[in-house]
Amino acid sequence: MASTTTAGETLAVAVAAAEQQKGEEEEEEEEEEQVINPWEVSAKGGKIDYDKLVDKFGCQRLDQTLIDRFERLTGRRAHVFLRRGLFFAHRDLTDILDAYEKGDKFYLYTGRGPSSESLHLGHLVPFMFTKYLQDVFKVPLVIQLTDDEKCMWKGLSVQESERLARQNAKDIIACGFDIERTFIFADFSYMSPPIYKNIVRIANCVTGNKIVGIFGLTLEDYGGKFFFPYIQAAPSFPSTFPHIFSGKYSNLRCLIPCAIDQDPYFRMTRDVAPRLGYHKPSLIESKFFPALQGESGKMSASDPNSAIYVTDSLKDIKNKVNKYAFSGGQDTLEKQRKYGANLEVDVPVKYLNFFLDDDVELSSIREEYGSGAMLTGEVKGRLIEVLSEIVERHQRARAAVTEEMVDAFMAVRPLPRMFH
Amino acid sequence: MASTTTAGETLAVAVAAAEQQKGEEEEEEEEEEQVINPWEVSAKGGKIDYDKLVDKFGCQRLDQTLIDRFERLTGRRAHVFLRRGLFFAHRDLTDILDAYEKGDKFYLYTGRGPSSESLHLGHLVPFMFTKYLQDVFKVPLVIQLTDDEKCMWKGLSVQESERLARQNAKDIIACGFDIERTFIFADFSYMSPPIYKNIVRIANCVTGNKIVGIFGLTLEDYGGKFFFPYIQAAPSFPSTFPHIFSGKYSNLRCLIPCAIDQDPYFRMTRDVAPRLGYHKPSLIESKFFPALQGESGKMSASDPNSAIYVTDSLKDIKNKVNKYAFSGGQDTLEKQRKYGANLEVDVPVKYLNFFLDDDVELSSIREEYGSGAMLTGEVKGRLIEVLSEIVERHQRARAAVTEEMVDAFMAVRPLPRMFH
Repeated sequence: MASTTTAGETLAVAVAAAEQQKGEEEEEEEEEEQVINPWEVSAKGGKIDYDKLVDKFGCQRLDQTLIDRFERLTGRRAHVFLRRGLFFAHRDLTDILDAYEKGDKFYLYTGRGPSSESLHLGHLVPFMFTKYLQDVFKVPLVIQLTDDEKCMWKGLSVQESERLARQNAKDIIACGFDIERTFIFADFSYMSPPIYKNIVRIANCVTGNKIVGIFGLTLEDYGGKFFFPYIQAAPSFPSTFPHIFSGKYSNLRCLIPCAIDQDPYFRMTRDVAPRLGYHKPSLIESKFFPALQGESGKMSASDPNSAIYVTDSLKDIKNKVNKYAFSGGQDTLEKQRKYGANLEVDVPVKYLNFFLDDDVELSSIREEYGSGAMLTGEVKGRLIEVLSEIVERHQRARAAVTEEMVDAFMAVRPLPRMFH
Repeated sequence: MASTTTAGETLAVAVAAAEQQKGEEEEEEEEEEQVINPWEVSAKGGKIDYDKLVDKFGCQRLDQTLIDRFERLTGRRAHVFLRRGLFFAHRDLTDILDAYEKGDKFYLYTGRGPSSESLHLGHLVPFMFTKYLQDVFKVPLVIQLTDDEKCMWKGLSVQESERLARQNAKDIIACGFDIERTFIFADFSYMSPPIYKNIVRIANCVTGNKIVGIFGLTLEDYGGKFFFPYIQAAPSFPSTFPHIFSGKYSNLRCLIPCAIDQDPYFRMTRDVAPRLGYHKPSLIESKFFPALQGESGKMSASDPNSAIYVTDSLKDIKNKVNKYAFSGGQDTLEKQRKYGANLEVDVPVKYLNFFLDDDVELSSIREEYGSGAMLTGEVKGRLIEVLSEIVERHQRARAAVTEEMVDAFMAVRPLPRMFH
């Protein structure tokens, strides 16, 4: 029994039509139809072609061999986001694993632009994955909150951007990072000689043309946008954090878990790194987390029904999943029993794919739902359970985060247990 | 007895020819022939037309009425640089004087790009004048050393730029600034949240087009050049220095003494100021100090004979003045006695005009030299005495500047005797 809306069905048809159309078009036109950069993610017809994106960006696919190596090296089961292809691409991840295998160290760098009060599940994805990486590799982590970026792009005041950064820091801390291995900083409050010197060093290697080209700017844009890319690049170099990485760690390798729309920043950073005597940072990159309305929808702060927020009540979750999660199930009981659900477009199955760790259960749901033995309502019911557990756990952890803990994570200090 | 070189005479003819030609040309062509911005000062024919420059930039002439008011308000003779027209233009200087007359306060802001090891007399001009302003008005002063700028423009390393900034700070301190009213800072070491927040606020008001237009950049330029203008603008706003200007001083007016080539930075700053809730900074602007070879020559670090350096020995000074100072005197004794010197192009007279405080003596030299009663050698002899005294005094003061004094001037601290 499908609970999709008419709008949703129209969308499914549109997606299918777009898919078919795609094959008939030329490569050049295709590229124009898919715009992915840090400020714009759009694909004509709705669905992003990640294969094309990997080729266009020139990054590498994260294949089973690499996942197997991950498991062998860490002695742990790969994270569900890795096993199920949410993190699907990389740049020089093998360099990091080679170094790790030889006993060399590295550090993790990730970040967030604090543009909204509370985070949705898609916002948590890089942090949940980064926590896993920190746990299995036992490495230090720096987390950049780009409050300055939100001032430059969204027109927020400095004060409001700083407030949001601090609120977001609480959600990030609630993901369970180890305070003895984690430094969280916001650009406005961390701005200091070490990071500024690296910003200038990087800027001196990148022409205006390159910035405009990589980031899709025009000279109509305001000044901050032209220098923000250097600010996001700088934490890729250990000397940006002399209180953490000094002496033998002053040229430590860096691994950046991020969504693939951040790739342009780090392509630029990797170009510059050797000229400044640093290792190129390695990347491990995720797809975009789908909106409840499906992959062609966009999770958006202006539409609270497009995503599950970490502040949602259990009632909100139940309502949103039942009402808005795009279903691949048939619209009558009889048709569902006869034809089964289209798992390719079904959002509950996509969400379970990323949040239901149990491979056996997931496989059984896919089989039964796809064959028609299971109904949309049942799958949505299971998803509601899974999401409720995640959100409740997060809310408990978030409530336990005090102002003192935020201060402690953000204090400029050495990290006492960096590598053990 | 003229000691001018043939090259010098050729130049004089060229200047005269250019002057004549100028009147015949159209305004538009004229503007192209004269390029004045922070990185390029050039005028076809050699001599800068300051009248045209004032009109083009839209600043105001600093006339006798204003100089008289200066003297009346401060109860002191106006500085020789002011009386003799070296500081010749301004923007809203009257606002500062109005405020001062009502008992309101202001602060001074000047700076230097530390591109060379030792300074020449032209470099000292803004600092000598700023010291006078600080003395007569009893106001706080911030001095910005733009070591980052030299990294961006001259390709110096961060370390070398910082070293030069510190060396230059010693020469600046040697000008006699009051440590209880003066904060000297270098951009690399002062970069911190207060200045960075203002940099972002300013950048958010200026488009890429505006930066490119005002500063003559192209997209071929490297990234730092696009954001440096905000860094030079930020000290015009008191909140950049919360350790000095807090509470009732948080919206203090600012007066900037500088050479007129810096005007583009502050035109931009003045545009932005009201949008950020600050007063527009006022400016008091100087002409360029002439090279020994004459106004059409350029004092240049690559030609040590183009200027008197503060590190020059008395022998160097004597040699440079006698050998290189362009003379307006006639080239034979008979002709000099008969026709007298051309004071308009004579460099020794120009230099005495700025450095010989005694109005009576200067007037007598001009009269006797212009009429032929005095010879070039005699005028040069007097200039050598005057310059030697200035340079010797500076060298003694510079030798007395310790590393501890530099640290003290550059310490981030309140200024205990700001306004008395």
